[in-house]
Amino acid sequence: MVKWFDRTPREVLAPLLKTRDEPAPVNRVLLEELSPERDAFLGQLACLQLSQLEAASQAVATAPSLEAKLRLAPVVRIVSSALEGTVRLLGATNDPLEAMRSLYPQVEEFHRVTAGEDWYELVLSLHVTTGLLADFYSAFAGGLSPIDRDRVRALLRLDDAQTILHAELERAIAQNPRLASRLALWGRRLVGDTLLQMYRAMGDAAKHGASGERIEPVVTEIVGNHTRRMDALGLTA
Amino acid sequence: MVKWFDRTPREVLAPLLKTRDEPAPVNRVLLEELSPERDAFLGQLACLQLSQLEAASQAVATAPSLEAKLRLAPVVRIVSSALEGTVRLLGATNDPLEAMRSLYPQVEEFHRVTAGEDWYELVLSLHVTTGLLADFYSAFAGGLSPIDRDRVRALLRLDDAQTILHAELERAIAQNPRLASRLALWGRRLVGDTLLQMYRAMGDAAKHGASGERIEPVVTEIVGNHTRRMDALGLTA
Repeated sequence: MVKWFDRTPREVLAPLLKTRDEPAPVNRVLLEELSPERDAFLGQLACLQLSQLEAASQAVATAPSLEAKLRLAPVVRIVSSALEGTVRLLGATNDPLEAMRSLYPQVEEFHRVTAGEDWYELVLSLHVTTGLLADFYSAFAGGLSPIDRDRVRALLRLDDAQTILHAELERAIAQNPRLASRLALWGRRLVGDTLLQMYRAMGDAAKHGASGERIEPVVTEIVGNHTRRMDALGLTA
Repeated sequence: MVKWFDRTPREVLAPLLKTRDEPAPVNRVLLEELSPERDAFLGQLACLQLSQLEAASQAVATAPSLEAKLRLAPVVRIVSSALEGTVRLLGATNDPLEAMRSLYPQVEEFHRVTAGEDWYELVLSLHVTTGLLADFYSAFAGGLSPIDRDRVRALLRLDDAQTILHAELERAIAQNPRLASRLALWGRRLVGDTLLQMYRAMGDAAKHGASGERIEPVVTEIVGNHTRRMDALGLTA
């Protein structure tokens, strides 16, 4: 058991959230030795992508205007394509449902707690959690076979969705600057909840020899990228 | 004003629903002379596709099992791709929002009345309305320019979504045969509501010279295809 599991996300985050470095690709080498179990890795990723699909759908359904619905609709297509890709990867060797079933209830709970109080929080949640999880799973995928690793990293490239979500939030904050402090607070809570998902994904792999020292720099980089995303919206991480 | 507009969908449907012909492609020639106004045509189509996206999303979110969510997720991707294609076509010559804004409230009402009482009705609604509307708009697109016509017909090819929805309904009815009579009733109501959307789409075009005689055979064929879809599920149309 690594020391991460004895700390709350807030304790872990306190020092990390001060980071204000230059943008940096997340250090993939450090996590590569963790060798995640393939089905558990892809199964949890598929569960999280299904949760992103439901969140994106909800964002379209509850958007405050027809304009916003149309702007967000491509996000639904992008995250559902990614989910299908992961399910296809899983299906090549195993029943996707077998890999997902035991993990899904806990991801449903993640979906519930990250849905937010209103549409603005939901959109920030999508932006923050898809960004954090893409960074994390891209790094963690380094321990898969080279073929799986490259496929997973391709599926995690959600740049177009990120661009749309960023623009939507920027527009919303410009129209209503009072949103900023509430969304900043919400972003801090989201990063904690999302890190918990990451620890869970690393759980078994971490038990097989990874040390907290190996994981910590990676998490620092992932949170650094998160801070830059929040900064770009003028929100204090 | 053609005589269609003086009749309720139920009056129009009564004789049509008896049709039990062989499968037939909808006669496209008859509607081709209606020459729909391009922006109104594409604008209403985009509104209906957005409504389909919301219905498909809702079907994933409310599905009774993880299995069903995964089976339905590709439908969300398929209908959102189609919506994006139509918005892109509209955007080539005009602001998509301008074309959609005045038409959207009435499509929202369509979405509301066709959502059904539960998940099974929602899934049948998606199956029935996407099938009917694809047949209708494919025929009606004959009056657009050849380039627009071919693009619209390509966007309307939702065979993969139809196959998924059919299989889902077949499975549900096999598991719970008592669903059949309720879904048959719901299907009859859906066809009425969907035909109303078609009349609305034809409204302006029909005022410019089309006769009820020209429209009636096309609607007969569209409803015939609907009847065959319902038959394939063992439901009486």
